[in-house]
Amino acid sequence: MRDRPIGVMDSGVGGLTVVAELWRQLPNEAVLFYGDSARCPYGERDEAEILDLTFRALDELERAGVKMMVIACNTATAVALAQARQRYRAPVFGVIAPGARAAIAATNTRRVGVIGTRATIRSESYAEALHVTNPWIDVHSHACPELVELAEGGPARLEKALPIVRAALEPFSHVEIDTMILGCTHFPLLSEAIGQVVGPGVKLISSAEETAREVSLWLADNEMTRTDLRPPRHLFLTSGDVARFRQIGESWLSCEIQVEFYDVWDERDAHSGIGL
Amino acid sequence: MRDRPIGVMDSGVGGLTVVAELWRQLPNEAVLFYGDSARCPYGERDEAEILDLTFRALDELERAGVKMMVIACNTATAVALAQARQRYRAPVFGVIAPGARAAIAATNTRRVGVIGTRATIRSESYAEALHVTNPWIDVHSHACPELVELAEGGPARLEKALPIVRAALEPFSHVEIDTMILGCTHFPLLSEAIGQVVGPGVKLISSAEETAREVSLWLADNEMTRTDLRPPRHLFLTSGDVARFRQIGESWLSCEIQVEFYDVWDERDAHSGIGL
Repeated sequence: MRDRPIGVMDSGVGGLTVVAELWRQLPNEAVLFYGDSARCPYGERDEAEILDLTFRALDELERAGVKMMVIACNTATAVALAQARQRYRAPVFGVIAPGARAAIAATNTRRVGVIGTRATIRSESYAEALHVTNPWIDVHSHACPELVELAEGGPARLEKALPIVRAALEPFSHVEIDTMILGCTHFPLLSEAIGQVVGPGVKLISSAEETAREVSLWLADNEMTRTDLRPPRHLFLTSGDVARFRQIGESWLSCEIQVEFYDVWDERDAHSGIGL
Repeated sequence: MRDRPIGVMDSGVGGLTVVAELWRQLPNEAVLFYGDSARCPYGERDEAEILDLTFRALDELERAGVKMMVIACNTATAVALAQARQRYRAPVFGVIAPGARAAIAATNTRRVGVIGTRATIRSESYAEALHVTNPWIDVHSHACPELVELAEGGPARLEKALPIVRAALEPFSHVEIDTMILGCTHFPLLSEAIGQVVGPGVKLISSAEETAREVSLWLADNEMTRTDLRPPRHLFLTSGDVARFRQIGESWLSCEIQVEFYDVWDERDAHSGIGL
């Protein structure tokens, strides 16, 4: 079982920032990724729908025999993580609690900003995760759907991104935070522009690094690290356009990747199952 | 149970660097600290003795009713952690695996240096913890007992420390590491001097921040964070000189602390138990 892949699901391509960190910190682990690009973004959908989409994707990853699962999408984590932990035998990790813990370790003033999709911000999951650990954190949250759209278009050119980012982050211009959580897996792609707008005094927290660290902790503690020393094989499945996914994926991950079309809602695919 | 303190044991005062991080990241948690200054340092003793000293201290913390325990000493972690996890019902955390994970997240070249006591380096615990997660890390370890002695004397003045640190780190002058694990809880006190010797291209990793983060993860995951919102009460016990412990502790922690004499090997103390 320990040589099985780590399953990663996302509403689209944003979760690849988590894959990049898994690869960096756990180079001997195999990854099976499912990106539901056909239904991206999840952030504007209602809860029941997000729950449905997330479970269907995780069901397939479990059927494929992954040893653990990561919901590499803030919206899906906010809505579905608690229930997913009840539903599956394999452990399920989200990206919100790790991001919150990284922010707590980073802040000195205890004034933390959070940006994300509407569904993520509405759920108040970050404020909750922050306050479980430190009830005295002053949390300033703001939904930025316009930044999700900007990042979805692929790595945005800085000149084009700056004015959009500046307008989106306007609500933070009057609160003195020292740490900002990029509460959407797409936002690390905009970190250069976000950093220019909020200034060098604000630390930007991406959940990706911390999520990979918590996965690494779980694997080590449960003796589930992969021991096979042959290079791991990775597979990326997308319900959207394969060529476009491959193009974005190879540009973000800086290497060639194996991408196949797979839609968990397609009856034929559902019967054949994910081949590994 | 969730409102009980976190128990922290150390061979002396070095573990206060872990307490400082627990306070910063978990300001609502109470800490019960036992520093075995009468027998410090552990690093030159043999395994059986280190095991004995560590268990006796943890036995007392458990009797005092702590909700979890942290071995805030690299030497004691290297020798006793695995067995302590079998011995106690309360979860026991060490400082080595967290430091290793922090180093893996920090390194880009996968060339990592480790410095610590003779017992820590001899145990090869860091190399093992690094390789469980990433078999491709190139580990360069070196015992620096002279730095333990230097740091034990309290915050060393930079001019005094520099030549000693330079001599101690000579073995690293020919290996190109980009990350160095300060594998002794005293070493963060020398980080300015160590930083000057190894240069700005080498990231210095202290286990304290990461250990506190893993404690925070466990508390949140197991619904064991303290919910009482009255200020937590902390207590520091030392088997050594109370005035000296208080002086070092208050200087490191930048606040007044309650210190009492307590020796787990003293029959009278053992019968009365730790009062909380």
